Amino acid sequence: MLERLKEEVLAANLDLPRYRMVTFTWGNVSGIDRERGLVVIKPSGVPYEELKRGDLVVVNLEGEVVDGRLKPSSDTPTHVMLYRSFPYIGGIVHTHSPWATSWAQAGRGIPALGTTHADYFYGEVPCTRPMTRQEIEGAYERETGSVIVETFRERGLDPLQVPGVLVHGHAPFAWGKDAHNAVHNAVVLEEVAKIGHRAYALNPDLRPMDQALLDRHFLRKHGANAYYGQTGTN
Amino acid sequence: MLERLKEEVLAANLDLPRYRMVTFTWGNVSGIDRERGLVVIKPSGVPYEELKRGDLVVVNLEGEVVDGRLKPSSDTPTHVMLYRSFPYIGGIVHTHSPWATSWAQAGRGIPALGTTHADYFYGEVPCTRPMTRQEIEGAYERETGSVIVETFRERGLDPLQVPGVLVHGHAPFAWGKDAHNAVHNAVVLEEVAKIGHRAYALNPDLRPMDQALLDRHFLRKHGANAYYGQTGTN
Amino acid sequence: MLERLKEEVLAANLDLPRYRMVTFTWGNVSGIDRERGLVVIKPSGVPYEELKRGDLVVVNLEGEVVDGRLKPSSDTPTHVMLYRSFPYIGGIVHTHSPWATSWAQAGRGIPALGTTHADYFYGEVPCTRPMTRQEIEGAYERETGSVIVETFRERGLDPLQVPGVLVHGHAPFAWGKDAHNAVHNAVVLEEVAKIGHRAYALNPDLRPMDQALLDRHFLRKHGANAYYGQTGTN
Amino acid sequence: MLERLKEEVLAANLDLPRYRMVTFTWGNVSGIDRERGLVVIKPSGVPYEELKRGDLVVVNLEGEVVDGRLKPSSDTPTHVMLYRSFPYIGGIVHTHSPWATSWAQAGRGIPALGTTHADYFYGEVPCTRPMTRQEIEGAYERETGSVIVETFRERGLDPLQVPGVLVHGHAPFAWGKDAHNAVHNAVVLEEVAKIGHRAYALNPDLRPMDQALLDRHFLRKHGANAYYGQTGTN
Repeated sequence: MLERLKEEVLAANLDLPRYRMVTFTWGNVSGIDRERGLVVIKPSGVPYEELKRGDLVVVNLEGEVVDGRLKPSSDTPTHVMLYRSFPYIGGIVHTHSPWATSWAQAGRGIPALGTTHADYFYGEVPCTRPMTRQEIEGAYERETGSVIVETFRERGLDPLQVPGVLVHGHAPFAWGKDAHNAVHNAVVLEEVAKIGHRAYALNPDLRPMDQALLDRHFLRKHGANAYYGQTGTN
Repeated sequence: MLERLKEEVLAANLDLPRYRMVTFTWGNVSGIDRERGLVVIKPSGVPYEELKRGDLVVVNLEGEVVDGRLKPSSDTPTHVMLYRSFPYIGGIVHTHSPWATSWAQAGRGIPALGTTHADYFYGEVPCTRPMTRQEIEGAYERETGSVIVETFRERGLDPLQVPGVLVHGHAPFAWGKDAHNAVHNAVVLEEVAKIGHRAYALNPDLRPMDQALLDRHFLRKHGANAYYGQTGTN
Repeated sequence: MLERLKEEVLAANLDLPRYRMVTFTWGNVSGIDRERGLVVIKPSGVPYEELKRGDLVVVNLEGEVVDGRLKPSSDTPTHVMLYRSFPYIGGIVHTHSPWATSWAQAGRGIPALGTTHADYFYGEVPCTRPMTRQEIEGAYERETGSVIVETFRERGLDPLQVPGVLVHGHAPFAWGKDAHNAVHNAVVLEEVAKIGHRAYALNPDLRPMDQALLDRHFLRKHGANAYYGQTGTN
Repeated sequence: MLERLKEEVLAANLDLPRYRMVTFTWGNVSGIDRERGLVVIKPSGVPYEELKRGDLVVVNLEGEVVDGRLKPSSDTPTHVMLYRSFPYIGGIVHTHSPWATSWAQAGRGIPALGTTHADYFYGEVPCTRPMTRQEIEGAYERETGSVIVETFRERGLDPLQVPGVLVHGHAPFAWGKDAHNAVHNAVVLEEVAKIGHRAYALNPDLRPMDQALLDRHFLRKHGANAYYGQTGTN
């Protein structure tokens, strides 16, 4: 069932230790088959070095297991909520990568401070508001998804233009057109979190970058007039 | 004698360089056989790359060597004191891992600042008070254990819920249900020390995380209603 | 065509991941054949692990492709502008190496703070002024070259004595007598950015180093009376 | 000639890249045969990956080459000055290791802030005064040695108890009973520079550690009553 998607999701999960994005089992990647409405996700607490394709779990968009011997990631309700609310994304990754997590713990979004950021994120990577006691004590993982969705809705953000978020006091989520691309964006998020952290240390009053420069860099890699790489139209 | 425990303690010691937790010989792991009241511990000053099972030393709960050709770690009296005072722990690790050591040198405990911390430590990782001249000039290594025990007793902390400590001006100790688990907790402690350090740099006035979020994360991985991993009951 | 130069430029590009200077495809190296006025440069967006000699692109000093199946780096107009304006350089490298990029994002040049810097850069590594909206929205990559040239001209800097620059809000460019030497200087630039960042953290009021010490170190490695290495004359 | 010493000095030089202490050729190690008054030292500017025993250079205590095809390290006069002034040291290492270099650039000595430091350095690792223009423009490398010796003499420091120094605006030197031990101390110096840097970030008003704790740790590893390791007398 969904063998090709499982292969992709397995490879994307194994990319997390390869890019040094995870300590122990602190991360998970999923991918979705939009036609069937089914999500393939990492099982909970299984070490990456032991992870096999057959360990992956298939859930539907209610978060119910429809295939697999193991329990899915405890963060599955967050993934499902994001897939339901962001219809154009195809893969999601959650890690506790340390630079991005330090911004999440500080409760600060990462402003667009330079072209490295602008090449992938069209503006600040937002940090969600703190969750309420009720949200935390309720369906916590689903509510984590809801607060992310609320953040994007209230700020009018397009999840394809800002493919990541910091959950307040917690850690980042990133996404993309598929599982591979989601991991790519998670690695970029960690990198811009690192560079931005160090830039602030040099200049604590640093302002976000110029809008024209942000536009130029984001749009030369994304959208109809992109001209970066071998597939751009320019 | 205690061959299976020695195997465990050897593997746990060798995990320290594998997780880049040690420079040279700056670390040691022990494990205890509670029924016999015997502790297996690394010998003093032996490089990890040369360490073999037969080099490990067996001591009793008075810290006396009962088996082994080599001298036990100079920190043995600290380990023994902790085993005697914390009856439910099965393994102990001491390192000078650099992020945790920087907090110890600054004389500050590591507050719970996010879910990475909350997944393993149910509140601040405390820093002990400075030791007195008398303690330092007396049975120093045993007194190091005593000041750790005093810290937990005075603050009413459960060593199983806060499986680590910073010794003031010195470095961390961590523990767990066995030697392997102790190293796991030591790696987590180093990671939360790193993330917390960077979070403070972004926001020096950062407050500890919300208690409800701390509860949620600690309890979803620990205790009767844990639901993280394949063995949780939920 | 230009097979030997292609070999050099390929090797220099592959040095970028070897020295951990790049994430994904965020970097490019070029080299020039001054007699023919032709530049060999990395193609756009091709992963380093797949890069082969035959993928390299040859452009003339107008930036027009004269050989190669692939599109050249999107930064090609910057390279070309630098080759035209700095007639004694033979190789150029652009990366988003994180320490240097943090200075670029902070909009600060890297002052000469110690002998590590002085061994390679004869004074501050300058940061360009912010580009204007017109420059950004126009021939952006060519204008990036122009603002670098303007910086060196206005400050009276010799590109051979200061073989690198930070582009404001963007990232570093470095150069040298050939592609290999350009990468060497880029690695040094990243190292001095790191050391300088940490030195400022210890002393935010740090002043540039003594001019006599700067002279001594730069001139013992460079110029007619150099005496470092096996080829010096002293 | 001095084949056994050359073997030791070669191994110690090759330890520098192994412990990630050097970028390119930025470091050198020497060792001395005290009976013959001859020093074996790395040649200038030779990459570590190409370095062979036959490349090492033998100089006398005037700094004159007495054996070897290559030019000795440009820092040879500093090494020779230290061997002449510190009669009980047997090996010297110079690097630009980045954490220690950041303290040197900031012009600050590294105070004893914790037991990691106290296990090897019996008090602050001093930073020399800035060199005068006359010293810099004269026999610079020899004067570098002189200013180190002056620092130790004026502060009444024993080079065996404080086996390292920061040269102001430059970088560290470390030494030991032989070349291997000198590299060991250089690695420790880099580690305490890192930990101390991070401790200051957490507490900028941090005071040096308690003298009793400094005594206890230094003396449990050094001197007549040492009891750390397998060879201690206690």
